[in-house]
Amino acid sequence: MEQLPGPVVEHLAKGQDKYVERLCEFLRIPSISTLPAHAGDIRKAAKWLLHEAERLGFKGALYETKGHPVVYAELCPHKDAPTVLIYGHYDVQPPDPVDQWCHPPFTPTIQDGCVFARGATDDKGQFLTFFNAIESILAVDGTLPLNVKLVVEGEEEVGSPNFRAFLDAHKDLLKADFIALSDGEKYRADMPSICYGLRGLLYMQIDIQGPKYDVHSGLHGGSVVNPALALSWILSRLKDDQGKVLIPGFYGHARDLEPWERKEMARLPFDEKAEAAMLGVPKLVPEKGYTILESVRARPTLDINGIWGGFQGEGSKTIIPASAGAKVSMRLVPDQNPDEIAGLLEKYVISMAPVGVTVKVTNISSNRALIVPRDSPAIHAMARSIEYAFGVRPVFTRDGGSIGAVVAMQAGLGIEDILMLGWGDPDDALHSPNEHFSLENFRRGSLASAALLYGLAKVKTSLKPVAKEPGGSHKK
Amino acid sequence: MEQLPGPVVEHLAKGQDKYVERLCEFLRIPSISTLPAHAGDIRKAAKWLLHEAERLGFKGALYETKGHPVVYAELCPHKDAPTVLIYGHYDVQPPDPVDQWCHPPFTPTIQDGCVFARGATDDKGQFLTFFNAIESILAVDGTLPLNVKLVVEGEEEVGSPNFRAFLDAHKDLLKADFIALSDGEKYRADMPSICYGLRGLLYMQIDIQGPKYDVHSGLHGGSVVNPALALSWILSRLKDDQGKVLIPGFYGHARDLEPWERKEMARLPFDEKAEAAMLGVPKLVPEKGYTILESVRARPTLDINGIWGGFQGEGSKTIIPASAGAKVSMRLVPDQNPDEIAGLLEKYVISMAPVGVTVKVTNISSNRALIVPRDSPAIHAMARSIEYAFGVRPVFTRDGGSIGAVVAMQAGLGIEDILMLGWGDPDDALHSPNEHFSLENFRRGSLASAALLYGLAKVKTSLKPVAKEPGGSHKK
Repeated sequence: MEQLPGPVVEHLAKGQDKYVERLCEFLRIPSISTLPAHAGDIRKAAKWLLHEAERLGFKGALYETKGHPVVYAELCPHKDAPTVLIYGHYDVQPPDPVDQWCHPPFTPTIQDGCVFARGATDDKGQFLTFFNAIESILAVDGTLPLNVKLVVEGEEEVGSPNFRAFLDAHKDLLKADFIALSDGEKYRADMPSICYGLRGLLYMQIDIQGPKYDVHSGLHGGSVVNPALALSWILSRLKDDQGKVLIPGFYGHARDLEPWERKEMARLPFDEKAEAAMLGVPKLVPEKGYTILESVRARPTLDINGIWGGFQGEGSKTIIPASAGAKVSMRLVPDQNPDEIAGLLEKYVISMAPVGVTVKVTNISSNRALIVPRDSPAIHAMARSIEYAFGVRPVFTRDGGSIGAVVAMQAGLGIEDILMLGWGDPDDALHSPNEHFSLENFRRGSLASAALLYGLAKVKTSLKPVAKEPGGSHKK
Repeated sequence: MEQLPGPVVEHLAKGQDKYVERLCEFLRIPSISTLPAHAGDIRKAAKWLLHEAERLGFKGALYETKGHPVVYAELCPHKDAPTVLIYGHYDVQPPDPVDQWCHPPFTPTIQDGCVFARGATDDKGQFLTFFNAIESILAVDGTLPLNVKLVVEGEEEVGSPNFRAFLDAHKDLLKADFIALSDGEKYRADMPSICYGLRGLLYMQIDIQGPKYDVHSGLHGGSVVNPALALSWILSRLKDDQGKVLIPGFYGHARDLEPWERKEMARLPFDEKAEAAMLGVPKLVPEKGYTILESVRARPTLDINGIWGGFQGEGSKTIIPASAGAKVSMRLVPDQNPDEIAGLLEKYVISMAPVGVTVKVTNISSNRALIVPRDSPAIHAMARSIEYAFGVRPVFTRDGGSIGAVVAMQAGLGIEDILMLGWGDPDDALHSPNEHFSLENFRRGSLASAALLYGLAKVKTSLKPVAKEPGGSHKK
């Protein structure tokens, strides 16, 4: 099991209150990347982060993109030491529906040992565990055990549309041996896990245009094709009630689960009733032929993320809406090509377009799925760090979410060792009202991050000796 | 052809500017009945109307209901003269989408000979033609040729939920020989018409509840049944692309068109391409087996008036929405019972409810369809008044819209002679952005209303002599 120097442990313990205060400061900035009105807050969050990194001794800058800036900063004291590239994101999801929050989403509030705020777990709180680790190690050792590069983007929640271009433009700058990130969750609150797979994401929009303005349903009902009805005809044929996506060719290249993987997943504890109760649904319905765990973690699927059209107020308004639309997204698995699927969806939707309306399909964003090799010294170091901080050996899991930036880094930087940590709990309500992050996870996550930095330094040492420079190694 | 005394014609001509100004004053009050925030405006409009009636010498009051008040006022100078009950409504539809208006919806603006504002044609402008007629007749004659009762409600646009109770409570007060209203439109701008039939309306809401909050589509996509998708499964099976409503039993009692009616309708000019171009749709799609005119005026149908759920902003948000819903309304024809159809819809929707979500069906409002006898002395007087004012003989039509109050008055007061006038043009955009009313129609409508009052006085006289009282008859 990875061990931490006693003084670092002590320093982290003493620093916890201050670190929580730093997190709350970060959470007060409503850095919502998808809403143009918050562009100023996005920049404020980026500057705040850079300033904090510089306070720790990092050197860096904001790198402009076509969208929101990337924060890059490095502290690389060792010429020949290994380098870890730590990825995170400073943007957050919109907080709506705001009226369902118990506390204002951008006024972080501590309650029941958790901090409640949009971004608490995804990803501000989890990312800052690295800052906590770095600050305490530096305070005790005066230096870091390895080189650390930080890359924190502001468009993760909108699918990282400009991150790939940033990577391509700064390949040398971003050179590293490992990539580490903490933007996930434990398998269960008492069961930390290591994620070795992510689903991909294809996010599209369908727009139906009918009459050029909302028209009276008494005067025109019976002759004007209703755009909302036309939309329902199309959406209803995208997925059936057995969880099967109906887009022709959708499953064509989808890599199925290996028998050993299904066996391993079947061993993971899963309380279907408790999960349904937590979500407040009468029943969970997996894809036919698969378990719930398989369906949400390693099978492709399709969801309607939003739908709109016409009158949404109280009471009644007797119109045929001029238009209707929906956000439709798909989670993909390895070997599914998002561009190909986008084409299949568009072709299918257009083929179903009824006469009397105009149908438009737009590709908003996409990224491929990912699988990471599980058997490397870095992954083993990660496992030991987690066991040290959380007191139990982590399980290996695939995650149903998508982190496009990770896929882009693997492809663009050619780094195979991607360490996907996750200090969150499954009921942290990320992307939902009342998102929160346990302060105990914040504390243990910081311990694990510190242990990981020491561990990774050793991993590389076993492969090639690190040159000893004055003050260049920690005092362990 | 009905004739008007020359001095009344002159007085109306001279008064036009003043009457337009009175209309603009009325239109400035945003009396939107469906939005609770406008309750104050609703009351303001009711008081304004009562005040204007009192200025003309009427006596009346606001009658409170469970919803918005009814304005009742009467000027009944003749003990034995016939009485006309003039119905109208002072409430309007919501103006949204507001950004599609060329002028602010509650700042009446004169352009191209029309006044643009919400309520211009539906129903403030049309109703005030009676005021113009009454004011000019009183100025010239010093009295009215018959007894006039005004009943103006504030809930027509939400289906008149409390009007029936008001009628039942005031049957004696509302006793009359004829009911007249002007809340429709000419068959074509140059083709005035008399409406002898209205469709009924059944307005319902379907709500789908999924998880208790919006959940992450990566973490739960594949196990949580998507409420927006479930909604589309249900909605898509309410009506097919041939215009047929699929609710079992929906057409059971629907009275079909008579062969003579179909023949008469087929003779009406109808330019399908021009209509499609006006609405901005690629094609109009009638119910299979019926013409477009038949489909929109005399056949039952179903529309989705609004649909909602989840994320509706720009860009992307990766959630499974907690809930989704839709407003679904049906236009009904004679012999269809709205309560029965509501039950059929609810049963059908619930039978389609997929596992994993909860489905709720709510009846918001309803009224039956109506057919009025076409061959009565009052209807003939109406035809002559219209021919006098507009210079052409009106055609008889059925209208696809619904006026629940008219149905309630026919049933509740037992009055068969319902005179459904309509001074609007088909492109007045009622219920749509840029609603407007032609000032020429306002002028001719006032002439026709005046002629109608004289005409109705004579109709009744031919049946039973009116007692001559001092000043009690007009000076014609």
